[in-house]
Amino acid sequence: MKKRVLVATGGGDCPGLNAVIRAIVKRAAQTDEWEVIGSIRSFDGVLNEPSEIKVLTEDAVSGIHFRGGTILGTTTKGGPFAWPIKNADGTWGKADRSEEFMRKLQYLNVEAVINIGGDGSQKISQTFFERGLNVIGVPKTIDNDLSATDVTFGFQTAVQIATESVDKLVTTAASHSRVMIMEVMGREAGWIALHSAIAGGADVCIIPEIPYDPELITKHIKRRYKNGKDGFAIVVVAEGAKNKYGKQVVRESTEVGNANLRLGGVAYQLEMEMKEAGLESDIRVTVLGHLQRGGVPIAYDRVLASQFGVKAFELVLEGKFGQMVAYRHPDIISVPFTEAISRYNFIEPDSYLIKTARGLGIHLGD
Amino acid sequence: MKKRVLVATGGGDCPGLNAVIRAIVKRAAQTDEWEVIGSIRSFDGVLNEPSEIKVLTEDAVSGIHFRGGTILGTTTKGGPFAWPIKNADGTWGKADRSEEFMRKLQYLNVEAVINIGGDGSQKISQTFFERGLNVIGVPKTIDNDLSATDVTFGFQTAVQIATESVDKLVTTAASHSRVMIMEVMGREAGWIALHSAIAGGADVCIIPEIPYDPELITKHIKRRYKNGKDGFAIVVVAEGAKNKYGKQVVRESTEVGNANLRLGGVAYQLEMEMKEAGLESDIRVTVLGHLQRGGVPIAYDRVLASQFGVKAFELVLEGKFGQMVAYRHPDIISVPFTEAISRYNFIEPDSYLIKTARGLGIHLGD
Amino acid sequence: MKKRVLVATGGGDCPGLNAVIRAIVKRAAQTDEWEVIGSIRSFDGVLNEPSEIKVLTEDAVSGIHFRGGTILGTTTKGGPFAWPIKNADGTWGKADRSEEFMRKLQYLNVEAVINIGGDGSQKISQTFFERGLNVIGVPKTIDNDLSATDVTFGFQTAVQIATESVDKLVTTAASHSRVMIMEVMGREAGWIALHSAIAGGADVCIIPEIPYDPELITKHIKRRYKNGKDGFAIVVVAEGAKNKYGKQVVRESTEVGNANLRLGGVAYQLEMEMKEAGLESDIRVTVLGHLQRGGVPIAYDRVLASQFGVKAFELVLEGKFGQMVAYRHPDIISVPFTEAISRYNFIEPDSYLIKTARGLGIHLGD
Amino acid sequence: MKKRVLVATGGGDCPGLNAVIRAIVKRAAQTDEWEVIGSIRSFDGVLNEPSEIKVLTEDAVSGIHFRGGTILGTTTKGGPFAWPIKNADGTWGKADRSEEFMRKLQYLNVEAVINIGGDGSQKISQTFFERGLNVIGVPKTIDNDLSATDVTFGFQTAVQIATESVDKLVTTAASHSRVMIMEVMGREAGWIALHSAIAGGADVCIIPEIPYDPELITKHIKRRYKNGKDGFAIVVVAEGAKNKYGKQVVRESTEVGNANLRLGGVAYQLEMEMKEAGLESDIRVTVLGHLQRGGVPIAYDRVLASQFGVKAFELVLEGKFGQMVAYRHPDIISVPFTEAISRYNFIEPDSYLIKTARGLGIHLGD
Repeated sequence: MKKRVLVATGGGDCPGLNAVIRAIVKRAAQTDEWEVIGSIRSFDGVLNEPSEIKVLTEDAVSGIHFRGGTILGTTTKGGPFAWPIKNADGTWGKADRSEEFMRKLQYLNVEAVINIGGDGSQKISQTFFERGLNVIGVPKTIDNDLSATDVTFGFQTAVQIATESVDKLVTTAASHSRVMIMEVMGREAGWIALHSAIAGGADVCIIPEIPYDPELITKHIKRRYKNGKDGFAIVVVAEGAKNKYGKQVVRESTEVGNANLRLGGVAYQLEMEMKEAGLESDIRVTVLGHLQRGGVPIAYDRVLASQFGVKAFELVLEGKFGQMVAYRHPDIISVPFTEAISRYNFIEPDSYLIKTARGLGIHLGD
Repeated sequence: MKKRVLVATGGGDCPGLNAVIRAIVKRAAQTDEWEVIGSIRSFDGVLNEPSEIKVLTEDAVSGIHFRGGTILGTTTKGGPFAWPIKNADGTWGKADRSEEFMRKLQYLNVEAVINIGGDGSQKISQTFFERGLNVIGVPKTIDNDLSATDVTFGFQTAVQIATESVDKLVTTAASHSRVMIMEVMGREAGWIALHSAIAGGADVCIIPEIPYDPELITKHIKRRYKNGKDGFAIVVVAEGAKNKYGKQVVRESTEVGNANLRLGGVAYQLEMEMKEAGLESDIRVTVLGHLQRGGVPIAYDRVLASQFGVKAFELVLEGKFGQMVAYRHPDIISVPFTEAISRYNFIEPDSYLIKTARGLGIHLGD
Repeated sequence: MKKRVLVATGGGDCPGLNAVIRAIVKRAAQTDEWEVIGSIRSFDGVLNEPSEIKVLTEDAVSGIHFRGGTILGTTTKGGPFAWPIKNADGTWGKADRSEEFMRKLQYLNVEAVINIGGDGSQKISQTFFERGLNVIGVPKTIDNDLSATDVTFGFQTAVQIATESVDKLVTTAASHSRVMIMEVMGREAGWIALHSAIAGGADVCIIPEIPYDPELITKHIKRRYKNGKDGFAIVVVAEGAKNKYGKQVVRESTEVGNANLRLGGVAYQLEMEMKEAGLESDIRVTVLGHLQRGGVPIAYDRVLASQFGVKAFELVLEGKFGQMVAYRHPDIISVPFTEAISRYNFIEPDSYLIKTARGLGIHLGD
Repeated sequence: MKKRVLVATGGGDCPGLNAVIRAIVKRAAQTDEWEVIGSIRSFDGVLNEPSEIKVLTEDAVSGIHFRGGTILGTTTKGGPFAWPIKNADGTWGKADRSEEFMRKLQYLNVEAVINIGGDGSQKISQTFFERGLNVIGVPKTIDNDLSATDVTFGFQTAVQIATESVDKLVTTAASHSRVMIMEVMGREAGWIALHSAIAGGADVCIIPEIPYDPELITKHIKRRYKNGKDGFAIVVVAEGAKNKYGKQVVRESTEVGNANLRLGGVAYQLEMEMKEAGLESDIRVTVLGHLQRGGVPIAYDRVLASQFGVKAFELVLEGKFGQMVAYRHPDIISVPFTEAISRYNFIEPDSYLIKTARGLGIHLGD
């Protein structure tokens, strides 16, 4: 009987996840000893087995590198340590099903686990590793906010989608002499915003790392208009942007407004602030939202994800567990979980990317 | 001295406008007698001349068919008959500058005008034609809601962008077992919504022509989930959709909410209604907004727009004024303004497009 | 037991085939009476059954509208009336297996056949229909050379790919002051060439309908160069182009050359002819070849193909056999096979498309 | 009077060149002291001035980052040290116009030169630097074969185009059970081939670094076919591939064949070799050629090129000449020309990219 490695994908979906899965399966198929199984919706599948455990053959992963999302499904709720349960009074609480999880892995003859996911997933992996599980991590963050690796897969696809959106907005902004605000992902770090602002030729870019001053932005945009009339401006703003007063984006509102503000809050706040600061031009808001996560991964991400997948399985073969794979140009390496999850990757104010943005005349809100 | 034809683009921008302009200029350059000049921001340029009148040489239009928007700029405000003026008390009023407009055209030696624009622009053209202006119309409506022509340019580019967005949302919806609502353009007619729903394989499509019942939609979506868990659904909704109660979309709100609801109103209302009707799945809203108008026109629209441009100038040569160009497969024809602006192009309930949507199992909300 | 309709795809692959198959299956699933089965590699599957007959459930066609090619496979060799067989002496001959084919359909309980394919497929369908088979045809020709329908699916995707290729070649041609010849599909009719030349802004377009004069083309291109130096030109040529001397493209050559000339023959011949006519500029050839057939169908083709699929099954329900579905804007209709296959769709010299090309200054080689 | 920096682009065009130019101009505009001028067709413009010297204002570079090619034009012929001249007998010789070039730069008040180009351009820069010219280099090689920098701009766009082409070929290959050979750029190094093979999921990838054995490739492909019938294979081959016998690609042929073989030679040779080795499947060849160089640069390349442009001008400001800019993640650095041009960047046999390819089951011809 073959040894089994279990694969799971957790957290928000990300272009390239399927390429990681495919690479693991392809590499494992070259051995005669290993079989790959997948757990549906991150580790939920293990707890709900057997219908949610799937044997991943080469046929099952044929052509999936081309597709966005993850064939294994994913979830952003809970996990074995914080399983959502309904209390007797109808409210929701959490249960620890981690021991049951370990038991079920044994029952399924799983000898190793490859857990593909974000920060939260890596922490869960670390805890299980400390309890004796043979686990390998593959980092997944479309925001690229992980310092252990040069870059993460999915990020460049998101940047490409955001840049193509700027390209589209430019023509309509110019035709109507409008200011276009575009909100992109990036809660803690502004990588997508800054890359797409540079690539798309934006006029203003607001990132979480640099608190913004609406007055300065407004002044900058006004200079782009001759006679207050001809001209246009593109503003790219990361969803995690903060103004310099520390003022929170207004997210409380009516029930309807509340729904609206889940996405777009920071963009609409910026619109208000610029109007208050005296901007008379037409302003329009575009919120990219879920369009950034989906679709066909660009080649860059498919290559990186494939490398991560092969490396993850190589680590299984080497029995080198408790490690997360990472990219350090031009190599694929592995780092201990403890190191992997300790540091975020923020944009440094003196990085060359910031210098480039300023050199291109992009206003950063400060 | 050469005879002059003046070109202007009015209303919301639309992929293909530049291809029309280029075709007019290219065709005129084959004569020795005609010169093309462009008026900036629709007819504003004529009233503001001389800096806002540009001679359009072949060099000036080189490569512009590839670009979205309009090199002449456009405006959605007023026009010679309703020019916005600031009253003494600071409020805004309207002035009739149409006679001044006619006078300035004479002064500019303009012998004919080609006015590219929507419904409003065609009506202005008709009025000027009745006053003796040699004017030709080129229809522009990204919504495709004009019955005088088989189809209008820009529409297929918008459909393509909306379809690619559905393609992206499908992968993330499937990975997270979510319901994704996507709002597209279409105030009176649901052509973009219905085409992209069929092309993208949506589950539900809501168009202005068919008032929707939130209960029925919710029921349909629930059937797409096994055990209320596995499954997903894509809902495409036109911005002009109405529910069967005639209930208006809640657009009143706080100042912030108000801003938010300019776009997305119908999508967020639908989300609320589905929740009220008992849908427990995760729901996410995406509002395409300005992304649909911008960017590189697809080949279909460039060909159609080029045909319109050549035809418009041919009509000038023939002295056949008071006409709007139109597409009647496989010919390019012209129709009198009076006929052109009298009828909208709605989706008929018994059209084959509706039959196709139903045949594919797309729920239309009724 | 359910009634069975058999679906097959024949001839060269074409973007949109899968959308037709999916639409048939989706529509059939709304009845309780019908089951759809697919024959692998056109009708080969029936003759080779059982492993090459597949039941097409809704799950089996989920998401396939997004993919190019055909999930049923296809073949360009033979068919039941001309099945390739190896003779005793090693040469290849043909056998008539049509009676066996009819017998096997009965054995498979097939009550109706939907045959998606080109000219050859429709003729086979007609012959089988005359022998009593309940058969419906769906036209498939990426060249758009069928007069029975306004347009065929796949064509606009090919035009889009060809246009994007022109867009790419323009930048490199301009940078290097080169002449770029691009060969596209179109053996008998030049629709793809003419559409992409108009959409891409080509300088010259050579189609089978208009024999070309290399001298005139060369003269036209020379005028595009200032001082014989600055300038560039894009030439789009259909694979079926013929020069005015009736001279055949040199396809005889060495064994290697022979292989090379399967594609690109006409483009390389044109290059030679232009050099002979005194063109001194750098000339480069690009042969699009198989890139035009593959990939994700654009929205236009997915909508048209879906309409064809639904209509084809509706005809089965109505028992209206011996018919091919067709598009007559805005309806989907059906025409008898006899009518469908009798006339080709060539570009008329006085069509508005030709007039547009000339109006844009595109040289047509005459 | 302002100080002048002269910019030139040399060698084959490459997506991202315009973003470099734009970044230089934008950064220079932030000083009050510097003016940027461009030389048309690499350094030819200086020798041919004044009509071929252009002042590059911010307006002149507006929006060009979006476009492929180079607004300055380029050439692959000669340069000031090897200017092509026609001899008295009609043959072509070379002249050294380097002193004249230096003199003309002085006359044009050029204080510094930024030379964007490949290996040859950098060598010319080095020679001029040794003669006292203030010159900065920006590397340009779409093949990514330069070891001084982590990666070069244009490369990822070429990889993306090649990968999208594989995506297209896969569907048609699968539908027809064919073997598809696709030839991509890469004379000395196989980076584009290997990246696109991994990203596209190819079955075979042939690169210059690994001489191939046609027998082994054929054997590998045969295993992909069940019953010698069902199956398909994608082969990506770099134009610089060599077989293990050191046998040169057959480039001699008839005059026609000769023309054909300028591109595609290695692909057609491979086709022949595989047939000789007994492959009976249908084989089709696609030569990407010029399609890889052109078109809109992807975001990745626009960001990298913008960083290079800003850095190049910063070096001018610092007076740090004789240097080429380079990317060492995450920084932009500079290296002396002597170091920059001394080493090529080949794919190492034990690199993780090769390991990944093998791990995915891609046959590398050995």
